[in-house]
Amino acid sequence: MSSASQRLQQLALNPTANVVIDGKKYDTYTEPPKALGGERAKTKFDVRELTYFLDGGKDSTEKNETVMEMIERDPIFENDDFYDLSKDETRVVSMARVGKICDYILAAESEKDISRRLSLIGLVDPGAYTRIGVHFGLFLSGVRGGGTAEQLSYWISKGAGNLKQFFGCFAMTEIGHGSNVAGLETTATFDEATDEFIINTPHLAATKWWIGGAAHTATHTLCYARLIVKGKDYGVKNFVVPLRNIHDHSLKPGIAVGDIGKKFGRDGIDNGWIQFSNVRIPRQFMLMKYNKIDSQGNVTQPPLAQLAYGALIGGRVSMVSDSFQVSKRFLTIAIRYAAARRQFSAVEGTPETKILDYTYHQRRLLPRLAYAYGMRAAAEELYDVYYSATDKLASTSTSNKAELQAAIEDVKELFSLSAGLKAFSTWGAAEIIDQTRQACGGHGYSGYNGFGQGYADWVVNCTWEGDNNILTLSAGRSLIQSGLQLRKGNRVGSAVGYLNRLDSLKKAKLNGRDILDPKVIQEAWESVSAQAIDHTVDQFVNLTEKKGLTASQAFEELSQQRFEIARIHTRNYVVRAFFDKIAHSATPGIKETLTEVALLFALWSIENDSSLFLKYGFFNSEDLDKVTEHVNTYCKKVREQAIGLTDAFNLSDFFINAPIGNFDGDVYKHYFNKVVRRNPSRDAKPHYYESSMRPFLFREEDPEIDVSELEED
Amino acid sequence: MSSASQRLQQLALNPTANVVIDGKKYDTYTEPPKALGGERAKTKFDVRELTYFLDGGKDSTEKNETVMEMIERDPIFENDDFYDLSKDETRVVSMARVGKICDYILAAESEKDISRRLSLIGLVDPGAYTRIGVHFGLFLSGVRGGGTAEQLSYWISKGAGNLKQFFGCFAMTEIGHGSNVAGLETTATFDEATDEFIINTPHLAATKWWIGGAAHTATHTLCYARLIVKGKDYGVKNFVVPLRNIHDHSLKPGIAVGDIGKKFGRDGIDNGWIQFSNVRIPRQFMLMKYNKIDSQGNVTQPPLAQLAYGALIGGRVSMVSDSFQVSKRFLTIAIRYAAARRQFSAVEGTPETKILDYTYHQRRLLPRLAYAYGMRAAAEELYDVYYSATDKLASTSTSNKAELQAAIEDVKELFSLSAGLKAFSTWGAAEIIDQTRQACGGHGYSGYNGFGQGYADWVVNCTWEGDNNILTLSAGRSLIQSGLQLRKGNRVGSAVGYLNRLDSLKKAKLNGRDILDPKVIQEAWESVSAQAIDHTVDQFVNLTEKKGLTASQAFEELSQQRFEIARIHTRNYVVRAFFDKIAHSATPGIKETLTEVALLFALWSIENDSSLFLKYGFFNSEDLDKVTEHVNTYCKKVREQAIGLTDAFNLSDFFINAPIGNFDGDVYKHYFNKVVRRNPSRDAKPHYYESSMRPFLFREEDPEIDVSELEED
Repeated sequence: MSSASQRLQQLALNPTANVVIDGKKYDTYTEPPKALGGERAKTKFDVRELTYFLDGGKDSTEKNETVMEMIERDPIFENDDFYDLSKDETRVVSMARVGKICDYILAAESEKDISRRLSLIGLVDPGAYTRIGVHFGLFLSGVRGGGTAEQLSYWISKGAGNLKQFFGCFAMTEIGHGSNVAGLETTATFDEATDEFIINTPHLAATKWWIGGAAHTATHTLCYARLIVKGKDYGVKNFVVPLRNIHDHSLKPGIAVGDIGKKFGRDGIDNGWIQFSNVRIPRQFMLMKYNKIDSQGNVTQPPLAQLAYGALIGGRVSMVSDSFQVSKRFLTIAIRYAAARRQFSAVEGTPETKILDYTYHQRRLLPRLAYAYGMRAAAEELYDVYYSATDKLASTSTSNKAELQAAIEDVKELFSLSAGLKAFSTWGAAEIIDQTRQACGGHGYSGYNGFGQGYADWVVNCTWEGDNNILTLSAGRSLIQSGLQLRKGNRVGSAVGYLNRLDSLKKAKLNGRDILDPKVIQEAWESVSAQAIDHTVDQFVNLTEKKGLTASQAFEELSQQRFEIARIHTRNYVVRAFFDKIAHSATPGIKETLTEVALLFALWSIENDSSLFLKYGFFNSEDLDKVTEHVNTYCKKVREQAIGLTDAFNLSDFFINAPIGNFDGDVYKHYFNKVVRRNPSRDAKPHYYESSMRPFLFREEDPEIDVSELEED
Repeated sequence: MSSASQRLQQLALNPTANVVIDGKKYDTYTEPPKALGGERAKTKFDVRELTYFLDGGKDSTEKNETVMEMIERDPIFENDDFYDLSKDETRVVSMARVGKICDYILAAESEKDISRRLSLIGLVDPGAYTRIGVHFGLFLSGVRGGGTAEQLSYWISKGAGNLKQFFGCFAMTEIGHGSNVAGLETTATFDEATDEFIINTPHLAATKWWIGGAAHTATHTLCYARLIVKGKDYGVKNFVVPLRNIHDHSLKPGIAVGDIGKKFGRDGIDNGWIQFSNVRIPRQFMLMKYNKIDSQGNVTQPPLAQLAYGALIGGRVSMVSDSFQVSKRFLTIAIRYAAARRQFSAVEGTPETKILDYTYHQRRLLPRLAYAYGMRAAAEELYDVYYSATDKLASTSTSNKAELQAAIEDVKELFSLSAGLKAFSTWGAAEIIDQTRQACGGHGYSGYNGFGQGYADWVVNCTWEGDNNILTLSAGRSLIQSGLQLRKGNRVGSAVGYLNRLDSLKKAKLNGRDILDPKVIQEAWESVSAQAIDHTVDQFVNLTEKKGLTASQAFEELSQQRFEIARIHTRNYVVRAFFDKIAHSATPGIKETLTEVALLFALWSIENDSSLFLKYGFFNSEDLDKVTEHVNTYCKKVREQAIGLTDAFNLSDFFINAPIGNFDGDVYKHYFNKVVRRNPSRDAKPHYYESSMRPFLFREEDPEIDVSELEED
């Protein structure tokens, strides 16, 4: 008996041991956790310090951990079956979770704390997160934002504050209208005789559509409808409309509701459609903080129309942070896997190479890891801008028009800033999920490693609460407007403050300075962004002043340019925010590593946009070859710390929910066990064998036709 | 009663009519089919001629239509429930379809005809297509490619030719090894005493994984395993291994099989895992066309190792064509929807604008439409190269080494060419599905418009049968090698023939010529591609000759550059193939439109890679501003013909399977009806209301704790 077959007999007894065949050692199964452990041991910084940096301090990390532990222990959040549930099963589970999430929200100590809790729940079950989010984040926020104090307290007294005998949804979009809210066609006609509104869906295309919670859950909706008084159309306002009878959940008269059914992702949320057939509600159900109507049908419009459309901005801001959250999860999976997986060997006869060691694999994962760190810094700044602007607006009296105007200017800056950041962060995260999936090869396509479900659940962020393309074009329009303001000598908001230095930025060049100096890099970004905006303003002026186009025609003509300047300005913003956050908050133990990460992000971003740096002359072609070399070098530096950098994200295996991404790196064991656990079968014979497989495999042909039998003798 | 409320009462009787509110007409529901019809009427070319052009002639179109009609009429392919089936339901349906598809294959008149039929079935049900594809495309192709004539006829006699009491699968990848086939760890140890092989899985990481058909269907597998003879490892060879007892489908002794379970997409195919525990098979079950072993254990290796790994190439070639097929479907949906959907109005008071009229929307859809046309031209060329190379190889005697070497050179060229085209076409199609989904806003996220399922089913093409990144890097390596050959004065394959003109291409510039001249554009592409390759060859020479790196170290160091040159060379190939196909096959009636489409594709591609055109000086910065203007202009031209260009794809509503993409453009009606049909509910109350919704909404708090009761009096 040969030594190889002896060895194989041995292995039959212990299938997890290593193998030696023809003198070559095969330890594919046992090596991965050791490989990951070895990588972890290279970490040169204090991982805990970095977690504090990301979370915004020790206190915040500890609060996160308290909530995470509570979720992880709670049987209702048990998630082993997450990838195997059908749409209907998912709905049942998400409803059960909604009850628990409600407890978590009611126990929160502040609005920020609610955000923290929801954001963590959103990582575990995006469908359930959305399901409760439509009530608190859309219905209740909408009532708070657009209703009077009396209206808010009325609806809270009916249960809207704690979801008792009450569940709100948000009926804005219609099947025929999404982004253009002002074009909605549902009508709310005032009937002076009864002091009521008649809510009506005039035709099928005005059916409320995509309404989260409408199909199964909601008792009330915040309906966007055209206010019609005495035949006059006052445009779209907000109305609370009861949908179901509280005590038996049956539909109110005139309400038709249906289930939107299968979606790409987030099946846990029961999106539905609603048609109103002349449904009557009291006049007082119209939200009247800014718009008012009295019993005689006299309408008072708000001093500034923008005030009415603020309900979505909070969601937009949190999506920048959510982009970071979801990116954390998938980067952790792919980077751990890359540190544990080997494939091909560089030199024949040597062990196979860890895929994390391949230059191109590093380039796929590590600049995106760096991008996620950048997103976090930008998200934090955006939250600050958001809380400051909304606090100011909330504390401003509606009767003081000058103060209101100032508050609205801040909100407008917030709109433009959040538009670009929301769009590019949600796209960025989608691209990160997609790239990390592909970086795990076939195992990335398995349902159990989370990428497919994660992508499907995520990408709706690129469309809802402001379609990314529309937001981007709108942010681009704002940038042109800022450029025009500057030419008139007016001041512009702080986010575009660098445009004030246009003249010096136009002259900026590398000029022999160190490409790796963060100051130089930031100057490069500001120079290119400012010049791209300025160039587009030139084109705008040319189109309007020389070619005779109207402003809106010129904006339309410059759509591609608007998209591009919004993109480059936003990237510039993230690069700056990242370096700023390091300067302000990084402790000495993590500063060096973070700076490497930020440099990788900034250099890789330059490489991706090299045409602009070339066009505006900050770098020449040789400089850009150097940038490519530096990206390689910084990939290699960051690679050494990559496991520490993902460990710092502080997500437990429960939150990772992907066996190839577990902390211990024992990828094949966890993955195999998960697949077997979720797909038990003793005989590997499908239940449809007798009904449809055997009849096919054992089919007989009909006898051959012998036409001679048909012939006359 | 006001006129508005009168009108509304009227509408309650006829909810599909148009509405006038406050003098403004609302015809959102009734207008879409008219809008689409109006666009269709603009078509200035013969749509039928264009279909012939795309299909490769009238005869081919008619054959396609015959098959399409047969599929569409066949109740087994009824697909209204496609998006609602669970994984298990999908498996049952796909098995039933496998039987029918088998009939279609057996009735085909040639290999090309099989491709045609499978490709159309793949549009309807990618899972079922894969399920039967693993037998015919992998198992049987593998036996044909690697087996002797006797082996092939033996397995055909056992039912492999017509799937009678036989179903083959393809056990190549293992959980621990995918792309690196040479590193697989399953062993096939020769036992001279019994003239058998012992097939064994030495440890868990060598478990065969992702094996399509293994979980439920296959009776046999083509197993990749290391040939071990007398303790010596001869590397990976192919063995037919019976998995199940034919008559009751139970597993053979020593075979363990399990279900891989949930995947991102293609749940219709039962991917499984297999472990072999010392399974014995006759020596004659090893495929022995190139590798041979006699009963004494004498092994003959093939003259050229590449011969053994040819099984995947056919799949790779067909994926370029499949990329076009899938792109057709989603482009048709999004472009029809864009012609029927209105959103915002350019000027207040005017009707809303069709979204197809927005500059940016045109830029999202139309260059990608043009790209799909380009893919088609490249796919056709690739098929020609494929059939010519494989025919040559098949007709070459294995004993004639010189002839074999020549045939293998052709196969190598095919490998490199198909690698780049497979990678960038499958990525391109994935991006097209993703962009077209987003271009349909929220409705793109609905399960019923097909994008989500389509994306999930599609993207595995980027990973399987050669991971795109690995293929791209390998294509990049070939390009550097070609560049090195040229410097040595050797000839290179025709796909890189333009490198022979490097010297003149280096000097090429626009020099006042017309940017819109196809000849100039092709020269621009060749110039940039040749120089990018040449620049990388310079870097390679520098690394190996001056910096002392080995060739493999230098290739590794230049990974990013390899990726980039493969990308740019492949795009250049597609641009050239597109213009060539127009020159050779476009009839006068379609030539003008096709040339506009090709120009849009080529100009848009230049814009996307403007840094290279700037770097190598073919265009300057002002030229590139012009390119952007031309892209806008050509978007507008192609926009006028966009409906005709998608109609020419010739996909019926059945094949489109997305209500917003139907031929008649009645988007809201079809979409609403589909959603209601698939989600019937009379009371909109979920089945879990009593069990989990009511207890939550009507929950009572425990009484408040009064600690005073616990205090001592």
